[in-house]
Amino acid sequence: MTEPILRELRAQLPDDAILTDPAGTEAYRYDKAGFCTAGTPLAVVRPSTGEQVQHVLRVATRHRVPVVPQGARSGLSGAANAVESGLVLSLSRMNRVLEIDPVDQVAVVEPGVINADLSRAVAGHGLSYPPDPSSWELSTIGGNLATNAGGLCCVKYGVTADFVRALEVVMADGQVLHTGRRAAKGVAGYDLTRLLVGSEGTLGVITKAVLGLRPAPETDLTAAAVFSAAEPALHAVNRIVADRVQPSMLEFLDGTTMRAIQDYRDMGLPAEAEAMVLVQSDRGVRAADDVAAIGRICAEEGAVQVADAADAAESAMLWQARRMVNPAIERLGATLVDDVSVPRSRLAELLDGVARIAGKHDVLVSCPGHVGDGNMHPTVIFDRGDDAAAVRAERAFDAIMQLGLELGGTITGEHGVGLLKRRWLEHELGPLSTSLQHSIKAAFDPLGILNPGKVLD
Amino acid sequence: MTEPILRELRAQLPDDAILTDPAGTEAYRYDKAGFCTAGTPLAVVRPSTGEQVQHVLRVATRHRVPVVPQGARSGLSGAANAVESGLVLSLSRMNRVLEIDPVDQVAVVEPGVINADLSRAVAGHGLSYPPDPSSWELSTIGGNLATNAGGLCCVKYGVTADFVRALEVVMADGQVLHTGRRAAKGVAGYDLTRLLVGSEGTLGVITKAVLGLRPAPETDLTAAAVFSAAEPALHAVNRIVADRVQPSMLEFLDGTTMRAIQDYRDMGLPAEAEAMVLVQSDRGVRAADDVAAIGRICAEEGAVQVADAADAAESAMLWQARRMVNPAIERLGATLVDDVSVPRSRLAELLDGVARIAGKHDVLVSCPGHVGDGNMHPTVIFDRGDDAAAVRAERAFDAIMQLGLELGGTITGEHGVGLLKRRWLEHELGPLSTSLQHSIKAAFDPLGILNPGKVLD
Repeated sequence: MTEPILRELRAQLPDDAILTDPAGTEAYRYDKAGFCTAGTPLAVVRPSTGEQVQHVLRVATRHRVPVVPQGARSGLSGAANAVESGLVLSLSRMNRVLEIDPVDQVAVVEPGVINADLSRAVAGHGLSYPPDPSSWELSTIGGNLATNAGGLCCVKYGVTADFVRALEVVMADGQVLHTGRRAAKGVAGYDLTRLLVGSEGTLGVITKAVLGLRPAPETDLTAAAVFSAAEPALHAVNRIVADRVQPSMLEFLDGTTMRAIQDYRDMGLPAEAEAMVLVQSDRGVRAADDVAAIGRICAEEGAVQVADAADAAESAMLWQARRMVNPAIERLGATLVDDVSVPRSRLAELLDGVARIAGKHDVLVSCPGHVGDGNMHPTVIFDRGDDAAAVRAERAFDAIMQLGLELGGTITGEHGVGLLKRRWLEHELGPLSTSLQHSIKAAFDPLGILNPGKVLD
Repeated sequence: MTEPILRELRAQLPDDAILTDPAGTEAYRYDKAGFCTAGTPLAVVRPSTGEQVQHVLRVATRHRVPVVPQGARSGLSGAANAVESGLVLSLSRMNRVLEIDPVDQVAVVEPGVINADLSRAVAGHGLSYPPDPSSWELSTIGGNLATNAGGLCCVKYGVTADFVRALEVVMADGQVLHTGRRAAKGVAGYDLTRLLVGSEGTLGVITKAVLGLRPAPETDLTAAAVFSAAEPALHAVNRIVADRVQPSMLEFLDGTTMRAIQDYRDMGLPAEAEAMVLVQSDRGVRAADDVAAIGRICAEEGAVQVADAADAAESAMLWQARRMVNPAIERLGATLVDDVSVPRSRLAELLDGVARIAGKHDVLVSCPGHVGDGNMHPTVIFDRGDDAAAVRAERAFDAIMQLGLELGGTITGEHGVGLLKRRWLEHELGPLSTSLQHSIKAAFDPLGILNPGKVLD
């Protein structure tokens, strides 16, 4: 079976676009999720054009071979993991920014463009592409679209889906679908663009996207405040959001995260602190007033340290701690990163519950997050070599998702379902919604060859 | 057939919730679209609760009776027009604001709440609900959701869909579907919320919505500029959008519209003017600088008159002309309001093309619009009593849609497809997208009882 498939693929693809040597394909098997399995692919295919993507999918349809679309493999849910005896369809070679139009304020891009490369390209035109997942220096726009990626600036500017105007999509059978439009507004028919964004490669392969842009942001400044407990920090957060400051970032570090950072590098974070709030305003001439106002709110809520930066250098210093979260936590052990998102009013209950879960399952859980959106990343930390600890870690991880749902939230705010949370999806959606999701999948991909086993069972 | 249906409906609905007398049901047959037919309904049903909506749909499913969900009938596409021998399901009695939460910044509402009533209710909490269709004093949130309504402030704040977090929906068979979540972010599964918003009552009946809110806007000020030609006005618009002013409204009146207004009421608009641009900034302490900057841009682009308001009273005066657009145009004859939306860079071609179409078909076409979004409302004006003129008007209307598509735009930016543009939908979407839309419809409403004949054939 393998040989005819490879022969057909090669008929319209250059030799170096097809990898079959296990040494070469191994790196394409996994994204960055923990606790997810991956199959051994038949081949990794790296097309350079939409026509080549169509060819791959026509061959796959003919032979009923699973196809896993893949970007930078920086995902955290296993959605890009290889499927046994399937094709990995890496879009990384389709990495051209086809157009940047400063009048229409759109960029037309291929899926393999790195988020940061797009950001830099549009900055040259006085424009910005706001979605900024933490992986932005690595992750591709195609992957961002597939997961509807969030990031730090969502609190003011929204998520990836809010910047997508139109898509070119190759369907499972190789046909090309166009959704949306270059125009800013449009309501003709059901919104297939939004249906495809966040569908994790299960409905079609995005080969081109028209993305909305904004004028480049103005200068920004940062305020940071340290609290001796989480609750007053959350009060401050709610007051900041209710204010007209419109923070362009609003992040939270819990005590465990702060101590991990302080152990990693001396940032002068007090050992007894239990919360830190980091807030950015990018309102140009108003930013200084904004950070002063934010500082005042935090002080009124009982912050033990407040810093509001006077300039870009001081602001950057304050964000250093935030950037150290991942390396500092990963030094402590293996990690399982959760991604619950709850209404902001329930955040105190979420933090309390996470602490309770950590105690019950005897694991360490740090809890940083995009607090302005209620989207937290409780991260279970455990000993890599200890199987019993790994089991406890997974139980804690599940309990955190259950807690997120009980608090009116979701199992995933921005990372996606993939393999990691697949068996939790129906808990969140219920049977009716799940059944509609299956019907939609069947309408787009009747043979079930696109990223099978991801998102839906 | 009629009697068993009515008897079953009455079993769980109060008497006054069911209208069958033609004198009483006549008013429910049409929305505000021109050139659209309507059937005579079997009955108008006015439930007060979600359970009553479920009951209506169970009865309708049992008897295969069409159901047309209906709000204020202020729509402009015929989507709410009655279907022959079907039920009109008026949601106007379900008009409670169930909750306003200033911490989570959400409102939970029933579909019959009037947009302006919600806006006033949330203002009492220092919050705003931005979507502001021109019909906002009349139209319901349910209707706004069904059409994904736009409005004047979209240019800064986005459309209805951007403010919807979760929906409760009664499906065609009476089951209750929950989509989305109260939390600000979430990516679990395909985005059914966005699929339902803008589906014009063809996929389900929205019985509750969780809407995102923002802090109340700051003070606003307005600039207005009159030009002797459209092209320099459009240049000014592009410069204003590229600037960091972030206008909260950005409207355009063409010469025909301006002359209609000046004939209706003396606003001092020069007869030889061919364009007027109205711009609002709501950036509080920065608004005065913003309108001054906007005024300078317009002057540099050759405006013959520029006014930037110093205060709210002057700003209100400048917006008076905008508010007179509809009454002024309607005084000139019957109207057929189009709703094309094109990339902003193509607006000059759109205006030229509309003038050409008006000449060719010997009709008057005014062309006001939400120019910041490229969403224009070319309005064909013709003699109500002249059948030949009506035929020419319809041809001009079609030619304008065709032009919108040729310019990379859409047949409808915010009014929806309904009946009025149904035969144009496939022109825009193409056969593949249309076929996927039919599959989605079949998944949600396999018997085809929900608003049949609307949007899709």
